[in-house]
Amino acid sequence: MGRTILSALSALGQRTGEPPISWLMHAALARPNLISLAAGFTDTETLPVVETRALLNELLRSARAGRAALQYGTTTGDPELRRLTAERFAKLDGVRPGARSPWSPERILVTHGSQQLLYMVTEALCDPGDIALVEDPTYFVFLGILQSRGVKARGVRLEPDGLDLAHLRAVLEALRRRRRLHRVKLLYLVSYFQNPTGVTTAFARKRAALALLKEFERDAGHPIYLLEDAAYRELRFAGRDEPSALAARGFAGRVVYAGTYSKPFATGVRVGFGVLPEPLFSAVLRIKGNHDFGTSNLLQQLVARALASGRYDRHLGVLRRRYAHKARVMQRALEAYFPREVEWRAPEGGLYFWARLPHGVKSGLGSPLFKAALARDVLYVPGALCYADDPTRPKPDNELRLSFGHASERDLREGIQRLGEALRRAPASAR
Amino acid sequence: MGRTILSALSALGQRTGEPPISWLMHAALARPNLISLAAGFTDTETLPVVETRALLNELLRSARAGRAALQYGTTTGDPELRRLTAERFAKLDGVRPGARSPWSPERILVTHGSQQLLYMVTEALCDPGDIALVEDPTYFVFLGILQSRGVKARGVRLEPDGLDLAHLRAVLEALRRRRRLHRVKLLYLVSYFQNPTGVTTAFARKRAALALLKEFERDAGHPIYLLEDAAYRELRFAGRDEPSALAARGFAGRVVYAGTYSKPFATGVRVGFGVLPEPLFSAVLRIKGNHDFGTSNLLQQLVARALASGRYDRHLGVLRRRYAHKARVMQRALEAYFPREVEWRAPEGGLYFWARLPHGVKSGLGSPLFKAALARDVLYVPGALCYADDPTRPKPDNELRLSFGHASERDLREGIQRLGEALRRAPASAR
Repeated sequence: MGRTILSALSALGQRTGEPPISWLMHAALARPNLISLAAGFTDTETLPVVETRALLNELLRSARAGRAALQYGTTTGDPELRRLTAERFAKLDGVRPGARSPWSPERILVTHGSQQLLYMVTEALCDPGDIALVEDPTYFVFLGILQSRGVKARGVRLEPDGLDLAHLRAVLEALRRRRRLHRVKLLYLVSYFQNPTGVTTAFARKRAALALLKEFERDAGHPIYLLEDAAYRELRFAGRDEPSALAARGFAGRVVYAGTYSKPFATGVRVGFGVLPEPLFSAVLRIKGNHDFGTSNLLQQLVARALASGRYDRHLGVLRRRYAHKARVMQRALEAYFPREVEWRAPEGGLYFWARLPHGVKSGLGSPLFKAALARDVLYVPGALCYADDPTRPKPDNELRLSFGHASERDLREGIQRLGEALRRAPASAR
Repeated sequence: MGRTILSALSALGQRTGEPPISWLMHAALARPNLISLAAGFTDTETLPVVETRALLNELLRSARAGRAALQYGTTTGDPELRRLTAERFAKLDGVRPGARSPWSPERILVTHGSQQLLYMVTEALCDPGDIALVEDPTYFVFLGILQSRGVKARGVRLEPDGLDLAHLRAVLEALRRRRRLHRVKLLYLVSYFQNPTGVTTAFARKRAALALLKEFERDAGHPIYLLEDAAYRELRFAGRDEPSALAARGFAGRVVYAGTYSKPFATGVRVGFGVLPEPLFSAVLRIKGNHDFGTSNLLQQLVARALASGRYDRHLGVLRRRYAHKARVMQRALEAYFPREVEWRAPEGGLYFWARLPHGVKSGLGSPLFKAALARDVLYVPGALCYADDPTRPKPDNELRLSFGHASERDLREGIQRLGEALRRAPASAR
C-alpha cells in the first residue's frame, strides 16, 4: 500500500469553491422562522401557473407540435424563439433585427438560463492567469466562475449612475504599466439594476466604456469584450429602459449580451440566451454542444409560445407592478426602522436594495451585526461577498444586500424592523 | 494600428472542435429526401405527448404544486426525483437504496441531460495532459469533450460481450512503463448497448475492470474512476438487465454512474442524473452551481411525476416494443440487402447496429462508399469518427454506425436497400 492515495481532482475541481451564499442557504433551512432577505429567489405568488398550464396545453394539444417539443432540437436553439428574441430586443434597443443587425437571430444562442452563457463565455475566452474586469461590487456567482477557472478579477468602481469611467481608464492604464494588458479578456457589466447594488449603467457610459476598451486593445493584442449581463432588464418598474451596449454603433463586434426569460417569466423554466459576435459565437456554440447539445426543447417552445401569444408581456406587467409594490414596502420599512446614518437608494427595478453602514460598522459573516440579525431570525447578504479578491484595494465590509424578491410583504416589513433593531443594538465597539 | 489583433479565445475555446457529426447534420438538412441512418434522434411517433400533457396538467392544477415547479430549486436537484431515482435503480441493481447504499439519494445529482454530467465529471477530474481510457470505438461526443479539455484518450478494445480486460491490463501496464499512469484519471465505459457498437459489458467484466483499476491506483497515486455511461440501459428489448458497476461490492467509491430520463421518456425533456462518490460529488455539485445552479425545476417535477404515477414505466413498455420492432425491420433489411461479407450483430437494446466491411473497404467521409451512399440519399456515421486519436493503433476505417431510432420503418428498409446498392457498386479500387 505504501503510497498515499491523493485526490484525483483537477486544478479546476480543486479551485471551484463552495459558493459564499451556501452557508446562508443552510442557515435559512435550519431555522424555519427565519426571514431571508438574502435569497435571490423571485416572488412566489405571481408565478404564472395558470398561464404556463394554458401554454403547455396549447403546445401539447396537437400531436405534431407536441412531438416537435418533445424531440431533440438543435444546439443553437429553437429558430422561432431566436427570431422572437431578436425582434423583441431590437425594438427595445431601437435598432432593426435582421441579418446585418447586432440583433440578428443568427447571432443568438439559447442557453439553460443566462448563467450557462456566463460560464461558457468565460470558458471560451479565459485561460488561468487571465484577467476579467468586474464592477466593484458585482454578482458573486460570476466571481465564483472566475475563481474556479483561475481567472483574476480586477474591480472597477461603481457610481450611482453606473460604471466609473475614470476608474476604468485608471485600471486599464495600471495594467498596461504592469504589462498585464495582454491578459485582460473582458469587462463584465451587470448593466440593469445590478446585482447587488441596484445601479443601472446608462447607455452613454456603456458606449464610452466600449471606446475605452477599444483604445487599449492595441496594446492588449486582442479584442477586449464587454460582457453585458442584462438579467434584470425586463424587471424595470420605474424610469425608462436604456438601450443595451449592442446599440452602440461600431462596437457590436465586441459586445456579448446575456439575457434571460427565467426571471421575468418563471425561474423554474431555465431559458436564457446570448447574443455573440464571431468568432465567439462559434466557439461558445461548440462548447454548448459538449455541455448538453442544446437546451430542453420543451422549455424553449413554452417560452416562444408565451412571447408570441402576448402572455409573456401581460405577465411581465403583473410582475412589474408586484415588484414596484414590494420595493415600496421595503423602502417604507427602511425609512421607518433603519437608523438615519445608514445610506441606501431606492432602485428602479430588479430585486435588490443596497445599504451602506457608517464607516467602521461591519456587516460580514463574523460581525456582531450579522450575529445580532441571526439571533433575531433575519438574514441578509454581507456586501463583502460581492467584492472580487483584488489586492489593489481593501474590500469594503460595511454594506448589505437586501432582496425584496421572495419574502412576503409582511416579512419584508418585519425583517427590516428586526434588522433595524439589530443595527441599533450592535455593540458600539464594532462601530 | 501597428499590431495585429489576434483572437482572444482561450486554449479551451481554440481546442473545442466542430463536432464530427455537424457535417452530417448539415448534409441532412440540405437534402430533403435524404434518409438519415446517422442521427441519434429517438423515435418520433412514440413521443409521449398525451402523457406529458396529462402530467403537466396534474402538476399545474394546484397553485401550490405549480408554484413549486416554477420556482428555483436546489443545485442538487428535486428531493423527490432523487429519492425515486435511488429506489428505481437500486431495485434494478439488486441492492437497497438508503443512506449507506451506493444508491443513496444523497449521492444523486440531477443534471440537464446526462451529457452535462459527463462534461462536469471531466472538468472535475481532468487537467490538460491527463489521460482517459475509452472503449475503442466510443461515444464521439465524449471524445469531443476530452479533446476540448486537452485530455488524451487511450482506446481499450471491445469484444462482443464487452470491454477486453486483457487489453485493459496491457494498456495500463504500457502506461506504467512509460511513467504516465499518474495522468490516468478515469475509464469511460458506455456499458449498455453501447453507442456506437450496441455491445453490452457484462457485470462480471465491470467488476473485474474495477479490480484492475484499483490494482494500478497505487502506482497512479490517486483514485482511477470508472465512469459508467448507462444512457441506453432502460432501452433494452431483449435479454436481461445487467447490474451496474455500483453493485460491485467494495468499489462503489470508484464508480460514477451517469443515467438519463431523456432517451427513455422524451429527448426534449433534458433530465439526467449522476451517482457520485465523495469527493467527486461535492466537486461536481460546486461546478454545477457555476454552470446553472440547478436543472429546470419544471422538467424535474414532470419526470418525478411520470415515475411516481407509473406513466414512465408504461411508456417505457411502449418504447421497448417499438424499438424491438424497428431493430427487427433493420435486421431483415440488412439480411436482404447487405452483401454477405459485411459483418453485423443484432443488438439487445439501444438505437444502433454496427457493421464491419471487409478489410480494405473504406467507410470514411471521403470514401467512394460514403459518396455513393450520399448520391443515393442515404447517410450513415463513418466508424472512424468514433475512435479516439490514439497513436498506439491505426484507426479502423471500415465500419459504420446505423441508427434505427429516428427513421420510419419504410425509411429503414429503403435506407438499408440503398446502402446495400452503394456497397455493391462502390468502385472495386477502394476495396
